[in-house]
Amino acid sequence: MAQEDVFKKLVAHCKEYGFVFQSSEIYDGLGAVYDYGQLGVELKNNIKKYWYDAMVKLNENVVGLDSAIFMHPTTWKASGHVDAFNDPLIDNKDSKKRYRADVLIEDLIQKIEGKIEKEVTKAKKRFGESFDEAQFKSTNPRVLANQEKINTIHTRFAKALNDNDLEDLKQIIIDYDVVCPISGTKNWTDVRQFNLMFATEMGSTADGANTIYLRPETAQGIFVNFLNVQKTGRMKIPFGIAQIGKAFRNEIVARQFIFRMREFEQMEMQFFVRPGEEMKWFEYWKDFRMKWHKSLGMGDEKYRYHDHEKLAHYANAATDIEYRMPFGFKEVEGIHSRTDFDLSQHQEHSGKKLQYFDPELNKNYVPYVVETSIGVDRMFLSIMAGAYTEDEVEDAKGRKETRVMLKLPAALAPVKMAVLPLLKKDGLPEKAREIVNTLKFDYNLQYDEKDSIGKRYRRQDAIGTPFCITVDHQTLEDHTVTIRYRDTMEQERVAIADLEKILEEKVSMKNLFKQLV
Amino acid sequence: MAQEDVFKKLVAHCKEYGFVFQSSEIYDGLGAVYDYGQLGVELKNNIKKYWYDAMVKLNENVVGLDSAIFMHPTTWKASGHVDAFNDPLIDNKDSKKRYRADVLIEDLIQKIEGKIEKEVTKAKKRFGESFDEAQFKSTNPRVLANQEKINTIHTRFAKALNDNDLEDLKQIIIDYDVVCPISGTKNWTDVRQFNLMFATEMGSTADGANTIYLRPETAQGIFVNFLNVQKTGRMKIPFGIAQIGKAFRNEIVARQFIFRMREFEQMEMQFFVRPGEEMKWFEYWKDFRMKWHKSLGMGDEKYRYHDHEKLAHYANAATDIEYRMPFGFKEVEGIHSRTDFDLSQHQEHSGKKLQYFDPELNKNYVPYVVETSIGVDRMFLSIMAGAYTEDEVEDAKGRKETRVMLKLPAALAPVKMAVLPLLKKDGLPEKAREIVNTLKFDYNLQYDEKDSIGKRYRRQDAIGTPFCITVDHQTLEDHTVTIRYRDTMEQERVAIADLEKILEEKVSMKNLFKQLV
Repeated sequence: MAQEDVFKKLVAHCKEYGFVFQSSEIYDGLGAVYDYGQLGVELKNNIKKYWYDAMVKLNENVVGLDSAIFMHPTTWKASGHVDAFNDPLIDNKDSKKRYRADVLIEDLIQKIEGKIEKEVTKAKKRFGESFDEAQFKSTNPRVLANQEKINTIHTRFAKALNDNDLEDLKQIIIDYDVVCPISGTKNWTDVRQFNLMFATEMGSTADGANTIYLRPETAQGIFVNFLNVQKTGRMKIPFGIAQIGKAFRNEIVARQFIFRMREFEQMEMQFFVRPGEEMKWFEYWKDFRMKWHKSLGMGDEKYRYHDHEKLAHYANAATDIEYRMPFGFKEVEGIHSRTDFDLSQHQEHSGKKLQYFDPELNKNYVPYVVETSIGVDRMFLSIMAGAYTEDEVEDAKGRKETRVMLKLPAALAPVKMAVLPLLKKDGLPEKAREIVNTLKFDYNLQYDEKDSIGKRYRRQDAIGTPFCITVDHQTLEDHTVTIRYRDTMEQERVAIADLEKILEEKVSMKNLFKQLV
Repeated sequence: MAQEDVFKKLVAHCKEYGFVFQSSEIYDGLGAVYDYGQLGVELKNNIKKYWYDAMVKLNENVVGLDSAIFMHPTTWKASGHVDAFNDPLIDNKDSKKRYRADVLIEDLIQKIEGKIEKEVTKAKKRFGESFDEAQFKSTNPRVLANQEKINTIHTRFAKALNDNDLEDLKQIIIDYDVVCPISGTKNWTDVRQFNLMFATEMGSTADGANTIYLRPETAQGIFVNFLNVQKTGRMKIPFGIAQIGKAFRNEIVARQFIFRMREFEQMEMQFFVRPGEEMKWFEYWKDFRMKWHKSLGMGDEKYRYHDHEKLAHYANAATDIEYRMPFGFKEVEGIHSRTDFDLSQHQEHSGKKLQYFDPELNKNYVPYVVETSIGVDRMFLSIMAGAYTEDEVEDAKGRKETRVMLKLPAALAPVKMAVLPLLKKDGLPEKAREIVNTLKFDYNLQYDEKDSIGKRYRRQDAIGTPFCITVDHQTLEDHTVTIRYRDTMEQERVAIADLEKILEEKVSMKNLFKQLV
């Protein structure tokens, strides 16, 4: 199946089974905002719990925090977001549509790359087996011309971005005849910078309200609380502060489902270290975070590091953990060595000292910071994308059919076990409910008595339930049930008394934790 | 200790031990916004977990949801928030300060009540034991005059509010010489209505951005997803949808610490029922929710119902669960029978049918709704207020000292157990860490080796840790430790091997759940 089709199917599946809905769907939706449905919320909560517990429970020197979305506006002056958290936008005067100038240019480059690909495909067909792609590309005049064009645009584009030269960004668009996809015209406005923060007014005085922003990242809530936590928690460096929370960015180009949203959720940890020791800790967290991802068992080959070549001005090292999505390898997590940039900025703007007295060194300093930052929604998407599976199985009458299954890690699955009475009579429903009632305090279970047992298995496969328990007449005699495993569809008989142990062994996050320590 | 002092001490305690910080404190704070510190986040998460699991895991017909803060703006037109979610505000032209007109009038009434109280206190002193308060109040001319004044204001105030008569609200303020507490003048502007929703611009087209609102309640996210959840979850009426999330209100008078905040968190459940059956379910949820509160063991006498006499136009029954705060009985939760108001409104504004086909009745209808709505932050405050305790104990040298303790329910306590080596040598720290390492996967533990054992006990008492374990030389010999109980300070020796069982019995939420079913 083509990867694009997988993605489309996945989006449909998320809707159909109550994982993700378009926000305000009855009002025809709100752009790039999504709601998590009855199963989505369970998966999302499990992801958050696994992250939080792995960071805070397993690392004695990491504590939690839950800072507000609203912060004093000077916070964003200090962090640089007021001045520099911008996208370069351009409007087409005919269609009145607004675009990101950088995206228009990236699309232009892609289009030319497409032309080269076309030439190559054509030539491949013509020459068959004897075709040498590298040689063709280095000699074919049309390919060479296009490649040179790409190189020229690239160089100019990089320079314009680097110099924040909005006029030349526009000029590239003009020079290469980029047209608006809606109006088809080249009737462009100038390029302007557009701040990505959502602003609102907090009113309490008659003089006029104060403009505040919805935080575009949770990290700054950690930085401004650095001393509060350090002092009241009696923390010694090195230590970390972890938090999960919503963040907001007024993205112009929001796409790929929940991959880039205007309202999203982050899991961030800032780890405060001695200046000079940041590289050691950068490596430590790089390693720990990769282990965390791989512990989920989605397949080690789906993950890779991507070191940043060009670093942000405040960073002295940065890497992404990328996951192979249906639309290619994409960043799901970033690990950044941010130096003392943020704390120093807040110190300067607040006039308050944000220093730590190190008893071993007998001196004060502004700590250096190593950050781990992951988007909950991206993580959710990566898990769903990795879990979505279609295989061919036989139905009860031996006919082949396609089974849709979510191979979710058992510890993250929304429903841990389905309890199914074989028939809706003979006391089987009562017995099944009895099992549900003894286990429901600890595990999320589903009771289902509707339709044939085969149909019920399929429904559970489709939502990723790792185990189905069937209660039949034998159950009433010997207190055993059939347990069916999602991935293999194998079945075996087990004692009801053993169910709790089986669940604990197979769905508990404890087993994942053990791969991390 | 006076209740006001308790409250002040509580606020200081919340800061000192890392439960609650003023938001953006280094920038001198942001009004009525707070951050939860390293211990606060744990307590808050435990409260949320206990609510969510009690609602969703224990009630098979209740499922979760996590809808976005951003919603389509028509949502708030349909819900009535755009037109009617207002506060009447008035400005003093000299001080430029803004006030809620209704609060100024309530303060005025309180001031006159204070005068009556003063007369009563004076008379009580004069007449001693023989004083008959009721008789005095019904005969003393000054008291009678003030009481009549209060009655007159009350009647007029109620009428003005009911008629939305902003002019008369102002006139009451003028007539009774209400002055601005800052400027001391009566130089007032007219009263204007001020909408409490925070607005922001979501921009994606050149034509101008769309004004959207930060949700002032989470409930509407449930209503607009009613059909999505019902259909994809194959839910049968009666069923409920529960969610936890942030909400925002631009309160002018925000006070009493985290009791009324501009950014706060709600736990709401909407239960969809057959029209005509709403009273049965209203009683069911009233009872269930009260049980939930009382299960925490904070003292049954601290809770009471408060039925609403005047109902909102969409409700046909409503009650509050009130908790005795240091500043009096206050609402922590509301249970409301909202009829089909919300779903009908959304149906009308969206043009989409929001109906349920009831197979038993063989007909379609718009369900009626019973809502339970609780503020996480208020719940947090009520738990902290109930838990804050000072008692007199003897220190190691037999001197009396005041012990500050949080008598938190063990299931909600941020730290479940502290593990303390008696000395920082002889292998005791290593042994203590060994214990931490075997239990840390399941429980939030703290290891502490600093200061005398008595000081360490006090620190744990102050943050509400129910159990302290001391590792001493005997531990190395017979694998036992001392366990000390927070509330009684009693100690006993137990085997290390039994610790997990002790924790499971005493801190697990399972034990609380059992009081609910």
